[in-house]
Amino acid sequence: MVTYTEISPSEFFYRNRDLAGFTNPARALYMAVRELVENSLDATELAGSLPEIYVRIIPESNANDSPDPRAYRLSVSDNGPGVEPNQVPSAFGKVFYGSKYILRQSRGMFGLGGTMTILYGQITTNKPVRITTSQDGKTKYSFEMLIDIAENKPVVLRRDSSDAGGQTGTRVDLTLEGDYLRASQKITDYFRQTALVASYANLTFVDPQGQITFFERATTSMPVAPKETLPHPYGIDVEAFKRIVKSSEEDNLEDFMVKHFHRVGERIASKFLAFAGIDGSLSPNRLSNQQVVSIVDALQRYPDFLQPDASCLSPVGEEILQVGINKELQPEFSTVVARPPSSYSGFPFLVEVGLAYGAKTLQPGMKLFRFANRIPLLYDESSDVSFKLLNEEIDWKRYHVPQDAPVAIITHIASTKIPYKTVGKEYIADRPEIERELRNAIREALRRLSIYLSRKGNMEAVQRKMNIYGKYLPLIARFATDLAGHKRTPHYRKLIGEEGGEVEVVAEGIEEAPNPEPGSEGQQVIGIEQSKIEDYR
Amino acid sequence: MVTYTEISPSEFFYRNRDLAGFTNPARALYMAVRELVENSLDATELAGSLPEIYVRIIPESNANDSPDPRAYRLSVSDNGPGVEPNQVPSAFGKVFYGSKYILRQSRGMFGLGGTMTILYGQITTNKPVRITTSQDGKTKYSFEMLIDIAENKPVVLRRDSSDAGGQTGTRVDLTLEGDYLRASQKITDYFRQTALVASYANLTFVDPQGQITFFERATTSMPVAPKETLPHPYGIDVEAFKRIVKSSEEDNLEDFMVKHFHRVGERIASKFLAFAGIDGSLSPNRLSNQQVVSIVDALQRYPDFLQPDASCLSPVGEEILQVGINKELQPEFSTVVARPPSSYSGFPFLVEVGLAYGAKTLQPGMKLFRFANRIPLLYDESSDVSFKLLNEEIDWKRYHVPQDAPVAIITHIASTKIPYKTVGKEYIADRPEIERELRNAIREALRRLSIYLSRKGNMEAVQRKMNIYGKYLPLIARFATDLAGHKRTPHYRKLIGEEGGEVEVVAEGIEEAPNPEPGSEGQQVIGIEQSKIEDYR
Repeated sequence: MVTYTEISPSEFFYRNRDLAGFTNPARALYMAVRELVENSLDATELAGSLPEIYVRIIPESNANDSPDPRAYRLSVSDNGPGVEPNQVPSAFGKVFYGSKYILRQSRGMFGLGGTMTILYGQITTNKPVRITTSQDGKTKYSFEMLIDIAENKPVVLRRDSSDAGGQTGTRVDLTLEGDYLRASQKITDYFRQTALVASYANLTFVDPQGQITFFERATTSMPVAPKETLPHPYGIDVEAFKRIVKSSEEDNLEDFMVKHFHRVGERIASKFLAFAGIDGSLSPNRLSNQQVVSIVDALQRYPDFLQPDASCLSPVGEEILQVGINKELQPEFSTVVARPPSSYSGFPFLVEVGLAYGAKTLQPGMKLFRFANRIPLLYDESSDVSFKLLNEEIDWKRYHVPQDAPVAIITHIASTKIPYKTVGKEYIADRPEIERELRNAIREALRRLSIYLSRKGNMEAVQRKMNIYGKYLPLIARFATDLAGHKRTPHYRKLIGEEGGEVEVVAEGIEEAPNPEPGSEGQQVIGIEQSKIEDYR
Repeated sequence: MVTYTEISPSEFFYRNRDLAGFTNPARALYMAVRELVENSLDATELAGSLPEIYVRIIPESNANDSPDPRAYRLSVSDNGPGVEPNQVPSAFGKVFYGSKYILRQSRGMFGLGGTMTILYGQITTNKPVRITTSQDGKTKYSFEMLIDIAENKPVVLRRDSSDAGGQTGTRVDLTLEGDYLRASQKITDYFRQTALVASYANLTFVDPQGQITFFERATTSMPVAPKETLPHPYGIDVEAFKRIVKSSEEDNLEDFMVKHFHRVGERIASKFLAFAGIDGSLSPNRLSNQQVVSIVDALQRYPDFLQPDASCLSPVGEEILQVGINKELQPEFSTVVARPPSSYSGFPFLVEVGLAYGAKTLQPGMKLFRFANRIPLLYDESSDVSFKLLNEEIDWKRYHVPQDAPVAIITHIASTKIPYKTVGKEYIADRPEIERELRNAIREALRRLSIYLSRKGNMEAVQRKMNIYGKYLPLIARFATDLAGHKRTPHYRKLIGEEGGEVEVVAEGIEEAPNPEPGSEGQQVIGIEQSKIEDYR
């Protein structure tokens, strides 16, 4: 006997929380911190405020001797624009309800994280969540609520308001089962790496022992907030096309194309419609099914649409990334390569790659830091496109980087849609277009490192020569003085630079640096050599 | 300005089809075949019928010159019990509606695959799906339908019925964009590996060139159909507990525990309630929130619950797996190790491992075939728990298996809930309990291979000796005959086994085989040496 049942979206993720990354108490605690912090960062940045995020984890009971996993109280608050009070219950208590279902770059991608966190807290501890928010800084509204999982709807237990004291923003307080002992490393890594790309944010973290870690803002320049964008014609399927038609009011296809698609002007619209063999004066609402299918088919094939415009993307920015790398890693050499925007399946994206060499904070060997829309990705590294490239495709020998050199590679992908392969946002699918951009950026960064190392190697060779001169020159000088019958040795110290004399070093080794590989086009270069070669003596 | 929207489950998966494995036209075609075949296998097996599955992929248009990706027509039919006609629209046209949301081992896990396949076909080609089904073999019902994605509901375009001609079962016909060129290898692998574990099924595959591949049934013994089971106490959270209470009628906790939990009898129920400090005569419906939380808390901590019963699981079975391995790989040596059932987070599971050595179909080196609930897993191998174990944890040297030996390892995990990390069912999370069972099974299989190889090595040494004896014995015999003054040489040929005389080979080398590693307990052994060592001559 087969029985059919319908389950709600809440129920689906309740049953399959592994899918959203809530696999075990350690991972769940990490995910909870991450999802709430990312919502806060998205909110503050969208409003253009310099983020002030405060995170605290404290044990639920005072009994300090109860071992992990156990119940923790997690609080995350921000100085964002707040949430409209009427939206609070659904925005936090309903799966598939949210503000992220539009084409705009954001850390959140599935509109699930906040609600999943609350759901997880509820099913493991059965405590309600409390959300406090103020939009105007005058009144703050507070909601205590649970989620009715079977119905996928919020159940508000208590709602009240009080004086906000001039402070806007949102605060979430919830109780969840966690394993801080096993999660602490990942949580620390998460904050450190978030500080690396969001160097304009103040992040405060209070751990269960009461220890406070403060990641201080290193710059007040913020990335431009991402903008919502129209869909690019390459990304449109029949379903999407029909929906746009349904919501449209234009009475001819040409206007319709111009109004609803990204970077389609009149000229392109009319050329495209000719290509598709469809009369541009037809009304979109009167298209036959067959006509829709052939337009959509032509959308994929038309070669002359413009690339998506990058202005809807919000990269970290070379300067901010450089500041972040120098602050968090303190390397001997670092560089940032930003690629021009590109697209896959109609979604714009761009790639930024940072490289740090000789950082005191790094072990020998290559370390990869992965970011997507400014989120650090900490799990399942070996399935990620960046890992694959660095370990299987890049020919490191070409760049004369010693195998155990302490190198960090930072990859960042910004897009209106990151092709994650899991709801838990652990790693990125290897779309060929993204792979290509990453490859070019990594090669360029390595080329710069190679030049630096080669120059440094020459410096060191010169230094070694100087050392030898330094050892024998006094003897030669005395010998020559004696031979000449003089009393006073000449001023030879100037020659070995011991008295402030400059020795010009010819960087002959630059030829050793490899040429750019095919496909790596010109970029703007920002390369800072933090510690210059010391004086030779 | 922040706008909030609610999206339907269909919409969610429509937007995020990467999550369900429908990443590109090649992968999507593979996923479509797989999801429909797996639904068919689940249905036939549950009804206890020997599966007859027919799959056909043909290009939608006759123009043979149109390149991939292009539209294909996919048909999958089975001889299963059919679907109740009234359920057809929802079962196939509504996300989160299905028959798999119960605790029973099945290939399907998320109740999503069939609907996702239909959704994908619809959004890429805008053609309706046709589902034809008969439960009684007399009447068959046919439905042509589309999915209303925004509303997550089926839209039936046509429904009719006709004579079924004595044949029960279900057939799905749909059109989808696919890339057969790039998918064909995976699809072939999929059928071959499915035939390996489902050696009791007839599988027919007609490819776009019209070529027919028939995987013939090799045994008529079928695994026992999996049974639905009660939840094990270890897997219960507050939410689950409350739901069970809601649906229960018992007026005291002791009866309640016995009735609703897996392997909880009266004795265990009363002991547990004492452990939890709760009066067993309380009515479940009158428990306070605090009492529920402390019962659930105690459920996780109580040490004396029985392990889940394996009778709800349906392993492949040693015999069927052995038959499958021999049929598909034709190895020189093969063995199957079945571990006793175990559990993780309250879900029962068991592990079966097959090993094939010296198969003509294998390249040198180790090849891994992964299965979960009888599904072959073909993507993202390197993230899987089996891969991790074989490549990072098992000490192959210990088993004297040469590095380039042609070895295949087949791992199968059966469970009421497979801990997949993606909706696309690509790989399994490394839960410690599953890892342990796999490790033990793999070690045991390798130990057997090691014994076989050592025995074979000895045989070969004996054979080499025999060859030398065979060369010199005639001379020695003649010399000895001459010395003794005899005319006729003795009957020495018997000694080198050339005339049917048996030479007993002492398998002294067996000591070389390693002892079982700690933790690998006794199992039943099925080891078949397919090709005996040839006569020595």
